[in-house]
Amino acid sequence: MKNTPLYETSCPIARSLGRIGDSWSVMILRDITAGFTRFDEFQKSCGIAPNILSRRLKDLIDDGLLEKVKYSLSPPRYEYQLTQKGKDFRPVLLALAVWGTKHFSPEGPQLQLVETETHRPLRTAMVDAATGEVVVPEAYSLVPGPAADPIIRYRHAYLRQKKAGVEPLKFTPPEKQG
Amino acid sequence: MKNTPLYETSCPIARSLGRIGDSWSVMILRDITAGFTRFDEFQKSCGIAPNILSRRLKDLIDDGLLEKVKYSLSPPRYEYQLTQKGKDFRPVLLALAVWGTKHFSPEGPQLQLVETETHRPLRTAMVDAATGEVVVPEAYSLVPGPAADPIIRYRHAYLRQKKAGVEPLKFTPPEKQG
Repeated sequence: MKNTPLYETSCPIARSLGRIGDSWSVMILRDITAGFTRFDEFQKSCGIAPNILSRRLKDLIDDGLLEKVKYSLSPPRYEYQLTQKGKDFRPVLLALAVWGTKHFSPEGPQLQLVETETHRPLRTAMVDAATGEVVVPEAYSLVPGPAADPIIRYRHAYLRQKKAGVEPLKFTPPEKQG
Repeated sequence: MKNTPLYETSCPIARSLGRIGDSWSVMILRDITAGFTRFDEFQKSCGIAPNILSRRLKDLIDDGLLEKVKYSLSPPRYEYQLTQKGKDFRPVLLALAVWGTKHFSPEGPQLQLVETETHRPLRTAMVDAATGEVVVPEAYSLVPGPAADPIIRYRHAYLRQKKAGVEPLKFTPPEKQG
């Protein structure tokens, strides 16, 4: 089976994963979102080998998530800054922090969410922007959107049949994986 | 530098990453959250090699995100189900889908969010649970929580100095990486 690179698939989750690559990239985004800017800070904060860090930083720049900015002319020194695309990754980091705190922190919260300006602890909820009503994760689904390609549509049609208990059911998606 | 395994660090984001391992694990969680349950479905939907899929499924079971359930006695057949810990990963998937749709889908949305029951398109917002006011990502921060260890506290103190422009600044965290 051909292993379609994730960034060539149609699913936006797969495309996102194709950009962030692996855990190290997410750790770097965590650090730069928190306020670190320099190579040696990332290296010590993440505990990452310099060659891997160099490669991941280059990938993140190539994908438009980071920019390398010269902040000293002599000696030439560089720091890294988030682009808007990189800044928009913050909700993923928050969701990972919430999940990790709930399930993998038996000692209690290592991190907590606060309003930046006032330092007031914050408990958030997701609401329907139209009605203001709270939406729990079980109440929503991702379904084919206006630009859905045949793979996404096939997956969804198959899953509807599966949920309805239609048998026999064989999953034979169009060639490119979604 | 010792490469502390991510699940041994104190940061909940790193701990989460230590459990999901790599992109394939997230792709499997994507599929099982969407409604796929069987080995051959994951294999075709993700475009993943069977040996890698077997290993990732085993890891996800070992970490308590999935359960393997026998659904046919003869011949013996198994399917995979999300545990509560696995179900709670859904907000991470949604955040990845939102990010991927915004930045890596020039053709338009391949997926859209709907209310499961009514199929009504849903636009969500994050609000302060106490006041109902919308909270934008730039307005919140993650700071040390009640159980924060010395590494998390050191990182935060350092970043405060950095933001305040205190120089010279050298990042020398306690030995274990956070």
